[in-house]
Amino acid sequence: MLAEIKGINEECGVFGIWGHDKAAELTYYGLHSMQHRGQEGAGIVVSDGKELTAHKGLGLVNDVFKKAKFEELAGRNAVGHVRYTTQGGKVIENVQPLLFRTQTGSMALAHNGNIMNAHQLRGELEDEGSILQTSSDTEVLAHLIRRGGQRTNETSISTALNQVVGAYAYLILKEDRMYAALDPAGIRPLSIGKLGDAYVVASETCAFDQIGATFEREVLPGELVTISDDGIEIRRFAPRGGRKLCAMEYVYLSRPDSDLNHVNVHASRKQMGVELAKEAPVDADMVIGVPDSSISAAIGYAEESGLPYEMGILKNRYVGRTFIQPSQELREQGVKMKLSPVRGIVEGKRIVMIDDSIVRGTTSKRIVKMLKQAGAKEVHVRIASPSIQHPCYYGIDMSTRKELIAANNSPEEICEIIGADSIAYLSERGLEQAIVKDKTINQGVCMACMTGRYPVMENGETEINYTKC
Amino acid sequence: MLAEIKGINEECGVFGIWGHDKAAELTYYGLHSMQHRGQEGAGIVVSDGKELTAHKGLGLVNDVFKKAKFEELAGRNAVGHVRYTTQGGKVIENVQPLLFRTQTGSMALAHNGNIMNAHQLRGELEDEGSILQTSSDTEVLAHLIRRGGQRTNETSISTALNQVVGAYAYLILKEDRMYAALDPAGIRPLSIGKLGDAYVVASETCAFDQIGATFEREVLPGELVTISDDGIEIRRFAPRGGRKLCAMEYVYLSRPDSDLNHVNVHASRKQMGVELAKEAPVDADMVIGVPDSSISAAIGYAEESGLPYEMGILKNRYVGRTFIQPSQELREQGVKMKLSPVRGIVEGKRIVMIDDSIVRGTTSKRIVKMLKQAGAKEVHVRIASPSIQHPCYYGIDMSTRKELIAANNSPEEICEIIGADSIAYLSERGLEQAIVKDKTINQGVCMACMTGRYPVMENGETEINYTKC
Amino acid sequence: MLAEIKGINEECGVFGIWGHDKAAELTYYGLHSMQHRGQEGAGIVVSDGKELTAHKGLGLVNDVFKKAKFEELAGRNAVGHVRYTTQGGKVIENVQPLLFRTQTGSMALAHNGNIMNAHQLRGELEDEGSILQTSSDTEVLAHLIRRGGQRTNETSISTALNQVVGAYAYLILKEDRMYAALDPAGIRPLSIGKLGDAYVVASETCAFDQIGATFEREVLPGELVTISDDGIEIRRFAPRGGRKLCAMEYVYLSRPDSDLNHVNVHASRKQMGVELAKEAPVDADMVIGVPDSSISAAIGYAEESGLPYEMGILKNRYVGRTFIQPSQELREQGVKMKLSPVRGIVEGKRIVMIDDSIVRGTTSKRIVKMLKQAGAKEVHVRIASPSIQHPCYYGIDMSTRKELIAANNSPEEICEIIGADSIAYLSERGLEQAIVKDKTINQGVCMACMTGRYPVMENGETEINYTKC
Amino acid sequence: MLAEIKGINEECGVFGIWGHDKAAELTYYGLHSMQHRGQEGAGIVVSDGKELTAHKGLGLVNDVFKKAKFEELAGRNAVGHVRYTTQGGKVIENVQPLLFRTQTGSMALAHNGNIMNAHQLRGELEDEGSILQTSSDTEVLAHLIRRGGQRTNETSISTALNQVVGAYAYLILKEDRMYAALDPAGIRPLSIGKLGDAYVVASETCAFDQIGATFEREVLPGELVTISDDGIEIRRFAPRGGRKLCAMEYVYLSRPDSDLNHVNVHASRKQMGVELAKEAPVDADMVIGVPDSSISAAIGYAEESGLPYEMGILKNRYVGRTFIQPSQELREQGVKMKLSPVRGIVEGKRIVMIDDSIVRGTTSKRIVKMLKQAGAKEVHVRIASPSIQHPCYYGIDMSTRKELIAANNSPEEICEIIGADSIAYLSERGLEQAIVKDKTINQGVCMACMTGRYPVMENGETEINYTKC
Repeated sequence: MLAEIKGINEECGVFGIWGHDKAAELTYYGLHSMQHRGQEGAGIVVSDGKELTAHKGLGLVNDVFKKAKFEELAGRNAVGHVRYTTQGGKVIENVQPLLFRTQTGSMALAHNGNIMNAHQLRGELEDEGSILQTSSDTEVLAHLIRRGGQRTNETSISTALNQVVGAYAYLILKEDRMYAALDPAGIRPLSIGKLGDAYVVASETCAFDQIGATFEREVLPGELVTISDDGIEIRRFAPRGGRKLCAMEYVYLSRPDSDLNHVNVHASRKQMGVELAKEAPVDADMVIGVPDSSISAAIGYAEESGLPYEMGILKNRYVGRTFIQPSQELREQGVKMKLSPVRGIVEGKRIVMIDDSIVRGTTSKRIVKMLKQAGAKEVHVRIASPSIQHPCYYGIDMSTRKELIAANNSPEEICEIIGADSIAYLSERGLEQAIVKDKTINQGVCMACMTGRYPVMENGETEINYTKC
Repeated sequence: MLAEIKGINEECGVFGIWGHDKAAELTYYGLHSMQHRGQEGAGIVVSDGKELTAHKGLGLVNDVFKKAKFEELAGRNAVGHVRYTTQGGKVIENVQPLLFRTQTGSMALAHNGNIMNAHQLRGELEDEGSILQTSSDTEVLAHLIRRGGQRTNETSISTALNQVVGAYAYLILKEDRMYAALDPAGIRPLSIGKLGDAYVVASETCAFDQIGATFEREVLPGELVTISDDGIEIRRFAPRGGRKLCAMEYVYLSRPDSDLNHVNVHASRKQMGVELAKEAPVDADMVIGVPDSSISAAIGYAEESGLPYEMGILKNRYVGRTFIQPSQELREQGVKMKLSPVRGIVEGKRIVMIDDSIVRGTTSKRIVKMLKQAGAKEVHVRIASPSIQHPCYYGIDMSTRKELIAANNSPEEICEIIGADSIAYLSERGLEQAIVKDKTINQGVCMACMTGRYPVMENGETEINYTKC
Repeated sequence: MLAEIKGINEECGVFGIWGHDKAAELTYYGLHSMQHRGQEGAGIVVSDGKELTAHKGLGLVNDVFKKAKFEELAGRNAVGHVRYTTQGGKVIENVQPLLFRTQTGSMALAHNGNIMNAHQLRGELEDEGSILQTSSDTEVLAHLIRRGGQRTNETSISTALNQVVGAYAYLILKEDRMYAALDPAGIRPLSIGKLGDAYVVASETCAFDQIGATFEREVLPGELVTISDDGIEIRRFAPRGGRKLCAMEYVYLSRPDSDLNHVNVHASRKQMGVELAKEAPVDADMVIGVPDSSISAAIGYAEESGLPYEMGILKNRYVGRTFIQPSQELREQGVKMKLSPVRGIVEGKRIVMIDDSIVRGTTSKRIVKMLKQAGAKEVHVRIASPSIQHPCYYGIDMSTRKELIAANNSPEEICEIIGADSIAYLSERGLEQAIVKDKTINQGVCMACMTGRYPVMENGETEINYTKC
Repeated sequence: MLAEIKGINEECGVFGIWGHDKAAELTYYGLHSMQHRGQEGAGIVVSDGKELTAHKGLGLVNDVFKKAKFEELAGRNAVGHVRYTTQGGKVIENVQPLLFRTQTGSMALAHNGNIMNAHQLRGELEDEGSILQTSSDTEVLAHLIRRGGQRTNETSISTALNQVVGAYAYLILKEDRMYAALDPAGIRPLSIGKLGDAYVVASETCAFDQIGATFEREVLPGELVTISDDGIEIRRFAPRGGRKLCAMEYVYLSRPDSDLNHVNVHASRKQMGVELAKEAPVDADMVIGVPDSSISAAIGYAEESGLPYEMGILKNRYVGRTFIQPSQELREQGVKMKLSPVRGIVEGKRIVMIDDSIVRGTTSKRIVKMLKQAGAKEVHVRIASPSIQHPCYYGIDMSTRKELIAANNSPEEICEIIGADSIAYLSERGLEQAIVKDKTINQGVCMACMTGRYPVMENGETEINYTKC
């Protein structure tokens, strides 16, 4: 299973709301706040109690909805999705929520995660005569739910969920109810909030703040939540087990203002910086962070170390999709892209450069070179997480093992490759301490990409100790 | 003159390059780095030695040039412009550089600043039969240069410049040379750099870093610079006087990595924070800055005060032009726009909130309210510049006097209006100390909008003491 | 069955080619020549022997393919489709060819016609757990072919075709072969041509002329044609019966340069005019035709009657989709839309106005009024086909019975409603004589919309006399 | 002067209306009906009595105005323009009406024609210090009107008109009046109509029919018409002379339903066919016309000759701007473009093919070949106008002399080049007889491109005999 990385990996965001007059608009704002989770496509499906209506498109949430007529997306209930795709499937058909219509009713699906046995399930379905329209894993679940022609309800959904293996947060919308489900290891984040009488479900709590909703509770591993005009009901489709929430959500993926499983992301990042300063101090003139994701850790490092925090690297806010990348020739002549060093700050200085993680190493190499060309005397690289040496099978696209610089090089080699004066990573224990604050609330994290210990296997085996339902 | 603000004010950025094979592309990158100076339109005019070719459009630099064919913008010499307009003139005709063709040769003009006697000059020209095509002040200079049918050369340009009164940085491109001119008080910034053998001129030095060029010298007040394949020549069209570089360029307008008149913008802002902490300390738990322009000052304040710097307000990076503004109803229900508070950070805390300046006060009021709703116990507002009480006539659009909150209210009243627990501004002296580091190099600043002391009057009178040429 | 018209009716065009290096481009030109058959959407699916690639979109063929990269549509085999939809389904999902991918191979379907028992078949499929993605009848056939998971081959296709009832011409593309099938009554047109060694299949022969191919043979009622690199094979999936080719294809729908079932459309229309002149002569000054479809009949009428043919009505060639329709107020003031009378021609004249058919009567009324306002002394309307009094169930969208003027009014009443001086229709016998030239080649036509005699019923009953296979 | 053709030639259409609530919308419809006169750009300028507002764009009238907000084009008075450009100037700046704003008032200009001394006038203006913004001749007139700073009124316009030499129809709009002017030889068409109390001016009367207006009178050669709320006044700025209306307007350019100088275009074309049948009869089976402009002449030829008129060539209505032109390879394999032969009609037949004119001969050659490949036995080409051997200096773009096939080849050579069985042209006398019906109303035509006799020379000399004013 570990031999190679699966073709299509996704990191996405889901949002759902039940029982609000402005359901579609609020879903738009909710998705907007989670734009960082997926920039390839976005969609909203609304239910007015009688039928489902969809608006989807390729591109950013703003682009997709700038011409949307929200009055045509009428209905008090909605689910939405932002999508990230790494290859191939950048086509409108794959944009979620997927909407399935039958003569007896419709169903919309939104999914964040990765189904490890999707290929096998798809083959079984096709052997039985099913025709799948997309290359998306998500469609497999819809066919599993409808297998045998049965209705879409708690039973058929639970049966279907027990056939899929992987990491997932699902939202399912029908005319008269909405379902939310989280995988048995709780690898992906999913929270429930309230806005007045309306229920809200989202991948990140920043979506609640965005619309003025308040956090209610986490969806726990193995739970199937049913929300309708009759209220909320929570069932369990898998035995209760220890949570393994993706550590990379804290390190890099989530927004600093989100709380994941009761832990604020900015605070955890700042603490990673603090731990890093304790573990790997440097005699230097200043601390700088690679914008934007490493700023929190850099501030933490600065505070703990007593060194001044400076804005030594600037991120150009206007570098977007239409930015014309400089040719190799111009890059070599010194034309900058997204990041530029601030010569007035770094010239002649010994610098601690904080980055949240290193994947291929190419960006780190470019930044170190840039800082040196701008006159930095020394550049000490400090990484606010352990080194990434293993692929992810749970929905994060992170390059193949071959491309992971830390899978093939020692820290000393990496230091030389990127041209730094020294390098150090945060320890596994340091990362865990920065995230897990309260042992009483099941705050375990998945660090498989750093440790190689995978909590869920494709054959359904797991290292999670389940208690009985 | 002070009774009302002129209709069309502009804050723009200019860029020119002479003698590089990739002139148009480098101008694109140069303009891109100055995108913050003008987002309404952009343009490039190229000279291949024989004729001028233009590409212009409304919108961001990326949008304007994403379909440009740079091979059709061939030529080793170019000028470019990014434009900001406050009213009316958001039309393609006004996008610069303006290009004027005659049977004997062409001329392109790019302009940053404001001509105070433009209306009067336009009237005189029209009485003589001239037809002006745009509502832009810049066209007036072109007609002045051609008045009497004379050629475009140092003499005709100097004569024309001596007729206009105001703040300006001009770039003029002809087939065989480029001119750069700065107003006699040097209110606007303009620097000269080199990239190999090529000469570069730009409003901000961040454009030099962007393309790998190095700073050479400032264009000094009253200078007319001529660049051609024969090299560079510097003349003076007005007597030498004390410089009055716009203080708002340091406080808010320029990019932190630019050096204006030998002073780094980030460093000056951080120093404003330091001075502010000395002048107006607070007993609080943390310092936060309003993103992005106040971050440097907040870090300075934190360092000087010993309080931790925290990321208490988050700026949504995806709020762009196509963002659908929430309705009043949704805003009142709590839907956020560009900025959101980080509840996990600010809850229960006493906060020093650093902002670079206050104009109308509405943003400050919204942020203070947002922080309080997110649980902040106290919010102490500290402004890293003196209060703005007077209009600007030199090219910065800053609202009418009626709208300036500080023109009509005492600090105490402002504190109450915006709902803060306390408020304090940096003093004039503090601001000057944060900017002017080296008295030997003519680093005077214009603080007219804060002090009401205008260095240049519409009738040509001035408070600048000129020395003889 | 006749009580009301089925919701979604379609008139479309299909095109297929097997074995040509420029398969996709030739399909583009073939579709382009059949643009009149469907203007809502267009698509091409190409097979390179290993996999199928699609390019589809809403709008005209030109619009859909103007940005297509034909080099990405590589492959020597292709099917294409132009689509017309009357309601609801104007969505990209319904644009054909529909493409179905499974792990064992892909299949593309293009369809012209209407399946009368689609609703019932869809219900059966869904009860068995199938999920259909579109509201298109065409998808039903795909699921029937895959029912039970069997492979897509002659047997599974024949079995599926025997379950559908209606009028249809299907093209099915797989990696290694292409199928063409025509309904047992041959209601829709479908012809086979050759271009060098390549085989071509199209709804109309004008597509052959467009690409330089030559006509080979008709696909006969009930035939299933298989084309592969091994050549062409023709099977029969239904017993041989009398052909009932849609008469409206000759009267109005097809292009004048097409030959349908060995009869040229322009020639048949001119002959309709000749027959009409014999049956319903008028004492008048000139003959005019309503552009474009009635010009041939008008010329025939003129020749037979000896009256001059004149261009009394002009069609504005630039009235397209973006034409801004005049408001009711402006129309009443005399602002014209697509057609305008030529005052200089019709003023003071007695006119025979030839139209191919009358559906609602509103257009005829407007044209007669227009001619009279332009000074025509008399307007005698002559219709080159029998009156339409019955709905079509075979794929032609023709309004409900309630809207058909001839279903509810006598010719005298119609004459009064449209304000003509006299009216006459071509007889059924006259229409048949104009089309059926050669009794030896099974040239029977369906005139159900004129006579109410339907050759195929929804329950599968038929009035066609089949001979044994 | 005859040595080479002037660079920028134009054939355009102008429209003006004074005193109607829906001025902008009616101008849209008027321009739409004259779309054939110019397809590169379109524009409307409206006056509400106080100021002028413009909406202009590149492309077809529909494209330019599909997003226009007519409520923002408020005002009871408007002028519009459709533009055709042959080279270079396909830029938004050149799209008319040109709008000139000064502090004392604005002026809009729309122009159809060509100014022969534009280059010289432009040079004089620039020597005096004027800056012209466009490469359009039209701007020259604006500067001439304002020369010396005088006001825009009858006197300044007359003075300016007397400096320009060429063929022109001008519309000038000010806040409080509209002017219309026609060149002293009346080479271009211009008519006045009425719509209720409103006055309408247009290049072709089809614009009057389009909006329901009625023809009032021609603008006569050398007239300056002033229209305001006080009514209409007609002055003369040049002596009265014989009219020389462009014959090509009848032969090819104008719409068949227009009346030019009291002669219907379709009727004149049909008569050209009649004259041609008399002059050059053929023993053949049928007459066909090249769509669309030769249909009228073909019908005339058929009627006079007694041969049947057939639809032997079909024009694809969907070949527009976005049509993908077939590659040379595909064209050689037989892929058709805009025109296709109707094999069912022409196969085995002797054909008279009527065309309105021959310029380069390449189209004729392609059509003859196409007909022969479709099986035509003989193709006899008959041209419904004399051969074009001379360039046009009056605003019609017609290729350089080098490219004119008739300038360099005898009819026999042309016949061989295009592969016809015979060829014949209409005589000059035949053309004149087909157009000039009523010798009492000054119906003289310019046939300079056929005869080489130019009615107006660049130096102002003329062959027109003027009577005294």
